Amino acid sequence: MEDGEQREWGAKAWTYLSSVRSLSPLIQCITNFVSMDLTANTLLSAGASPAMLHSPNESPDFTPQVNALYINVGTLSDNWLPAMELAAQLASKLNKPWVLDPVAAGASRFRLKACLDLISLKPTVIRGNASEIIALAKASFASTKGVDSSHDSTDAVEAAKSLANSSGAVVAVLGAVDFVTDGNRIVGARNGVPMMQKITATGCAFTALIAAFVAIDPSHAMETTASALAVFGVAGELGMETARGPASLRTYLIDSLHGLDQTAVISGVKITAI
Amino acid sequence: MEDGEQREWGAKAWTYLSSVRSLSPLIQCITNFVSMDLTANTLLSAGASPAMLHSPNESPDFTPQVNALYINVGTLSDNWLPAMELAAQLASKLNKPWVLDPVAAGASRFRLKACLDLISLKPTVIRGNASEIIALAKASFASTKGVDSSHDSTDAVEAAKSLANSSGAVVAVLGAVDFVTDGNRIVGARNGVPMMQKITATGCAFTALIAAFVAIDPSHAMETTASALAVFGVAGELGMETARGPASLRTYLIDSLHGLDQTAVISGVKITAI
Amino acid sequence: MEDGEQREWGAKAWTYLSSVRSLSPLIQCITNFVSMDLTANTLLSAGASPAMLHSPNESPDFTPQVNALYINVGTLSDNWLPAMELAAQLASKLNKPWVLDPVAAGASRFRLKACLDLISLKPTVIRGNASEIIALAKASFASTKGVDSSHDSTDAVEAAKSLANSSGAVVAVLGAVDFVTDGNRIVGARNGVPMMQKITATGCAFTALIAAFVAIDPSHAMETTASALAVFGVAGELGMETARGPASLRTYLIDSLHGLDQTAVISGVKITAI
Repeated sequence: MEDGEQREWGAKAWTYLSSVRSLSPLIQCITNFVSMDLTANTLLSAGASPAMLHSPNESPDFTPQVNALYINVGTLSDNWLPAMELAAQLASKLNKPWVLDPVAAGASRFRLKACLDLISLKPTVIRGNASEIIALAKASFASTKGVDSSHDSTDAVEAAKSLANSSGAVVAVLGAVDFVTDGNRIVGARNGVPMMQKITATGCAFTALIAAFVAIDPSHAMETTASALAVFGVAGELGMETARGPASLRTYLIDSLHGLDQTAVISGVKITAI
Repeated sequence: MEDGEQREWGAKAWTYLSSVRSLSPLIQCITNFVSMDLTANTLLSAGASPAMLHSPNESPDFTPQVNALYINVGTLSDNWLPAMELAAQLASKLNKPWVLDPVAAGASRFRLKACLDLISLKPTVIRGNASEIIALAKASFASTKGVDSSHDSTDAVEAAKSLANSSGAVVAVLGAVDFVTDGNRIVGARNGVPMMQKITATGCAFTALIAAFVAIDPSHAMETTASALAVFGVAGELGMETARGPASLRTYLIDSLHGLDQTAVISGVKITAI
Repeated sequence: MEDGEQREWGAKAWTYLSSVRSLSPLIQCITNFVSMDLTANTLLSAGASPAMLHSPNESPDFTPQVNALYINVGTLSDNWLPAMELAAQLASKLNKPWVLDPVAAGASRFRLKACLDLISLKPTVIRGNASEIIALAKASFASTKGVDSSHDSTDAVEAAKSLANSSGAVVAVLGAVDFVTDGNRIVGARNGVPMMQKITATGCAFTALIAAFVAIDPSHAMETTASALAVFGVAGELGMETARGPASLRTYLIDSLHGLDQTAVISGVKITAI
């Protein structure tokens, strides 16, 4: 029964969120300049401990200490790419989960190649929008519209499965319906509100939150990823109740994430197998 | 009659804002680290699509896809300058409008030279405060007070005209009264509230919004620029109605920009030829 | 009497805040990417004038113009370190106060060495959390938990005194109780609310505010530092009255700092010699 399944997912999501709060996993974030503030505040509000340390001079000492690594290529440049690659290599070698946000993957050949190179370093989860996942699955530089998706997430189902199979990563796609696949199973999440797309870096914050959830239980990346998407979506729904626009939604979204209780999570989470 | 003129400007500004919302122009932003969040959120709330891609490895692929380019030298360094110059060259070559924010132009010789070099690449619009425009018009490194203006905008009228004539750009100056000139005509805008100056990066956000408006109608840079200034000012006035200080004003300013309706724009815009 | 002492400190803190508002000291900030927005808004709301100029190409022209320098190593990399060192050298040579925030000092050997090198350039004030100050005093790379402290501030008293004596700087430590020492005297500040730790970069913003206060009266670094800590703490307490979570606290904290009046400061400041 769908209702029972949803309540089960709600209970699971609540367990993961509670663990993030009690264990406060340390998340190394190598992310874009635009999203650093929202990303750090999202992680803190969820109970995790963000650390924006990126230098190749530091990762050999620091990455071994972290519980998960989050890499986001938003404001990519050739002097940040080696830092990303080194940290990803370290995480993979140390069996630490790491999560990739391939922002605007198809916007340039340089960016596409960088994303594909990072994917060869075995991320645990890849989280993109439909256009990004399609570009990666086809390994094609296409004229996507900047950082926003010009494809619907449902178009991306086959691409996501294909990318999951070729990379070994769990692949999550945000869109009208969010979904997560390991190449075989697909789970959909129907939380969140459309206005979240009018706040810069919410996509990045979603991915960072996935890293915090995956850090709790790396061997269940599909479950933790779906739970992170749904939990942040529920926070958005609650935030929307008092928001007057995108900027106040941003504020109340974070406040709500911080204040989420068991009832809100269990009754709010809308995850189902597809 | 001034009233009729203002209503005409209000109608024009509303038309431009509506076009930004319906066409969602893609704006490449090469801007300072402080302002990226507010800039992206301003553009999203106005209906545009911001993309903070700056690397010289990407601009050859990406700049041809955008509707306008926005360059801001706030946190300038010698490894970002070539990225700015390359993107500006591409935009000029491709006849795409581009807008320059010469933050703190007179704060150092390095910065002044960088701004003058960028101006030689033919920006469509230059938007500064009085001190910045005076420094550029005189091409002189002067002890301005950091990023804040130590001159009134009215002092800058002759400097702005001179800079417009020498550069071929439309020049906009924010101050007690905002104004826009093409070297010949001058248009003043009297919207906004003083507390906006107590929010970091509002000046940068103004300039980014100009880029979104100019993208809609590049051949009318004076009109689109004046409209952008007035529209953001109206959003500030509405935001101020519920703000308790600069941080809540920042929130409500963006909310208001997102929610602006025809009546608010047409009745609120205060633009007049000077 | 403690009450009289506290009122005296309140009056002193009010005098310093009033001077920041009337003199608007220009503060050069070379800080991490995460904190730039909050740092600039904190300084603006306090009445200071922030300038995020960091390039070694600019500091020789710009640092001589500023009233204080603020350096924060949060997102340190090898291409930013020379910029920090040059600006610190200039400030020391020009007898301008400068303040160091040694974020996550013990997180890597590279970072620890960078912090110790900066300390050899004679900062006026060093502001850290307990783990950071202990790492610096022992000059030891230890497995601290990222950027958050894993020690209580009371553990750090001896370390702070030792660091103050060896460096010549005033040392401030944020924690359950904040304190400031010159190696001899210790002053405690008991303002603020725990939720401020759930907002990214509040520690950085505290340090930036110290720079603004120290700029007013560099020869009384202990007094200005304690006052800055208490004043920002009072703003946090007032902000907490209407906050619903960390994001709205961030907003109301800045609003409150901007609106603080004499009564709130004098009656709110809780500073005592320890």
